[in-house]
Amino acid sequence: MAGTDPVTDVRRRIRAAYDPELLRSAGHQLTDLLSEHLARVERSSESVLNWNEPPDNVAVANGRLDDKRRPLDDSQALADHFADLVQLTLSRGHNLHDPRYIGHQVPASVPIGGLFDAVGSVTNQVMAIYEMGPWASAVEEAMVQRLGEQIGWQRDEFAGLITHGGSLANLTALLTARNVSLGDVWEQGIVRGGLPPVLVAHAETHYCIARSAGILGLGTRQVVRAALDDRRRIDPNKLDETLAELRQRNQPIVAVSASACATPIGAFDPLEDIADVCARHDVWLHVDAAHGGAACFSRKHRHLVAGLDRADSLIWDAHKMLFVPALCAFVFYKDKAHRFEAFRQEAPYLFDPSAPGLADFDSGLKTIECTKRAAALGLWGVWSMFGPELFADMVDVTFDLGRTFYEKLAAASDFHPMHEPECNIVAFRYIPDELSDAPPERLGQFQLDLRRDIIRSGEFYIVPTKVNGIGALRCTIINPLTEETHLDLLLDTLREQGRVLLNQQ
Amino acid sequence: MAGTDPVTDVRRRIRAAYDPELLRSAGHQLTDLLSEHLARVERSSESVLNWNEPPDNVAVANGRLDDKRRPLDDSQALADHFADLVQLTLSRGHNLHDPRYIGHQVPASVPIGGLFDAVGSVTNQVMAIYEMGPWASAVEEAMVQRLGEQIGWQRDEFAGLITHGGSLANLTALLTARNVSLGDVWEQGIVRGGLPPVLVAHAETHYCIARSAGILGLGTRQVVRAALDDRRRIDPNKLDETLAELRQRNQPIVAVSASACATPIGAFDPLEDIADVCARHDVWLHVDAAHGGAACFSRKHRHLVAGLDRADSLIWDAHKMLFVPALCAFVFYKDKAHRFEAFRQEAPYLFDPSAPGLADFDSGLKTIECTKRAAALGLWGVWSMFGPELFADMVDVTFDLGRTFYEKLAAASDFHPMHEPECNIVAFRYIPDELSDAPPERLGQFQLDLRRDIIRSGEFYIVPTKVNGIGALRCTIINPLTEETHLDLLLDTLREQGRVLLNQQ
Repeated sequence: MAGTDPVTDVRRRIRAAYDPELLRSAGHQLTDLLSEHLARVERSSESVLNWNEPPDNVAVANGRLDDKRRPLDDSQALADHFADLVQLTLSRGHNLHDPRYIGHQVPASVPIGGLFDAVGSVTNQVMAIYEMGPWASAVEEAMVQRLGEQIGWQRDEFAGLITHGGSLANLTALLTARNVSLGDVWEQGIVRGGLPPVLVAHAETHYCIARSAGILGLGTRQVVRAALDDRRRIDPNKLDETLAELRQRNQPIVAVSASACATPIGAFDPLEDIADVCARHDVWLHVDAAHGGAACFSRKHRHLVAGLDRADSLIWDAHKMLFVPALCAFVFYKDKAHRFEAFRQEAPYLFDPSAPGLADFDSGLKTIECTKRAAALGLWGVWSMFGPELFADMVDVTFDLGRTFYEKLAAASDFHPMHEPECNIVAFRYIPDELSDAPPERLGQFQLDLRRDIIRSGEFYIVPTKVNGIGALRCTIINPLTEETHLDLLLDTLREQGRVLLNQQ
Repeated sequence: MAGTDPVTDVRRRIRAAYDPELLRSAGHQLTDLLSEHLARVERSSESVLNWNEPPDNVAVANGRLDDKRRPLDDSQALADHFADLVQLTLSRGHNLHDPRYIGHQVPASVPIGGLFDAVGSVTNQVMAIYEMGPWASAVEEAMVQRLGEQIGWQRDEFAGLITHGGSLANLTALLTARNVSLGDVWEQGIVRGGLPPVLVAHAETHYCIARSAGILGLGTRQVVRAALDDRRRIDPNKLDETLAELRQRNQPIVAVSASACATPIGAFDPLEDIADVCARHDVWLHVDAAHGGAACFSRKHRHLVAGLDRADSLIWDAHKMLFVPALCAFVFYKDKAHRFEAFRQEAPYLFDPSAPGLADFDSGLKTIECTKRAAALGLWGVWSMFGPELFADMVDVTFDLGRTFYEKLAAASDFHPMHEPECNIVAFRYIPDELSDAPPERLGQFQLDLRRDIIRSGEFYIVPTKVNGIGALRCTIINPLTEETHLDLLLDTLREQGRVLLNQQ
């Protein structure tokens, strides 16, 4: 009779969806699928990127939504259906754990980090207020303390939070800087009396910094590009001149936004000097250390972020060089007093005056998110299991391999590294004999076309960039399983595919 | 010799962390732990909320970070360590799947949704550009299409995206409204010539709307509170007057922000009438349908969101009434032409002019996030396995139970429902005889104190609110396993704990 009575059908469906035995069957299948997939990917038995055109992928995703196979009373059949969907997802995804994945600043994450994350997802642990996610909130606070100490601060003097990504982290920190620097702008809005307030930023900073100016009502045209030196780092002397000039004409300055490192070639700004300049002009120093913050863990590379502890605010993405799954971005304030400056509100149904002491653990007072994922579980779990030494190791291995790659490029007559790398980001061009005299545009377009051929072939994943407006190739060695031999293979692959491309043109 | 040579140690640690066999052992342990935990929680064998004071939880979290047990060469021992950490996490968390969890608008999510999510986390599937997460991007697009069709729109006419939470979703939509309504504000910033631009919002809207005004440079004081009717819904006639007055004095209007539903008592604004008013004054209509969007799936309750298809922008949290794990918030634009209006930039290393046709699938052009989680996998998986009928069922079951709860409250002489519920949100007070003549402040404080005692006891999880400034209790029945008997038990528990509290006072 089941299934004929609508009420019974409702109950059957809900019971099936919430059945702990389904979770068990599906979880065991998932585990085997993931571990077998990971083993294949780590030994490069799959394509790096499974390329399918967007309309094809969308049609397949839509097809499964129309699937009428719904054996509600058979949890094994449901688990098999689940496994099919997982298999499909794996077969059309991007295999970041393949050592030939050396593309964007998104890591081959520590796989077990994703399992810690799953504890939060399956049980739906969230924050906003401490009581909604007491353990999630505590784990976040513990990680804020640890990373802050790595920066070089004293516990209880600084404050921090986790948010969903580096862009949001930068926005939050710059919002705080705006509110602190411009008075009652939070309540009144941007009021223009004299000259418009400006944000001074590394000339090649991540696009989210200019976006922040657009979002915050400052306007993207109010971003003053800080001049760079020949290593594409902010030039402190020129910054000094810029700030002096702005101060002289009484133009409000929201902040200086430095980079550790900037994305195009991984250039680390000289933070000590920049901090001196900012202090001299009494300007808020923000540092985007999304990528480079991790250098704090490395004895060998820590010098790259010397002065980071002098930033008024900074961001640091654990989902980059701490190798945890996306997203887990930290915002830090050197002075704890700034932790509630981004937002200045209360929501009576959320923040309970009957327990005011809890406010410091109510994440919603400090972050844009109200409901927030338990984003620190992966980092906490990986640290607990492998220690901070693992983070140091992964920074060292990948940064050192960036140097090795550079040396290979410099030694090859048909490759041209665009810079001496400071970390694991390397921009370069492949210049076969046939193109040695080509006009720059032609050469740049060749890099972009060649890259597209290569990623679609599934043999490597690398990314495009532009250097001085001309196309180039860019690698981020952000997989600790990548070895020197893979880099040799990349050069050979570029030569081979380059030959094919040249023959087509 | 292993462990004595630092280089060997580095390799051992990385190899251990990335070992597919560790993932297998840990995943199987995780599966058993989660399914057993879920079974216990669903039958109320645990406390709803495991209450520990913040310093205690933080100390315990920190303690595990200092644990030196790191058996790198023994994957079974590592998996056991993992299981310990998971067990700890479960033992100190919040058990949303307990039918006595009827608190904030965060659901007892469909557990298997978290396993789909884990596929993304373990393999670190992300977006920003299509090629970084082709399947993740396609699944998101498929879900945008399906939900948009549920709203009542034609595929290809609207556009949408997923972002990390309702607050961020509202911010994104209002950013678009600001940019469209105020001209070149993105580039120039907020320029004040005449009167400052205002945002007109439901007087009891979620705090993130006023925050958005603060973030976007409008200023929180530039939020005009739309007057409400006696059911706490925007009064369209008064809105008409407000907009007429603003237009008459030439004050720029960013948008009207309506609610479906507003958080305090779950009041659904009359969207058809509001849309008429907005059309008359040529004002952008935004609707926060974070909670109520799901009513689109229900034949019985769809009338609550009649007119939703007339919104210029709206948000809809799948991690609320579609019962998927946090976070999965949708932003929709009725007119596809608005999809790139929030941000107007390019990042040369991200968006490749060699393949411009892909831009529509490059999520980073439409969202604040650059790197973005594969946030749609859970929703896609649950829909594929159980069909859209499951969403309809869960709306019906929980909304209907809200009505039942109201009737119980109304029938009890010592309880006072604050409103007739339109959905699964019910605000009320417990008024024992001893307090029947108490001053309002005393009565309000009693509700808050009583609630705190109850949640710390682990017997129920309910939340506080204020109605007309006076404390009250609030339930969201957002667990489809909650039944009428649990609500009876809640009333009894309030009476018993209320007695204890009165005796202490």
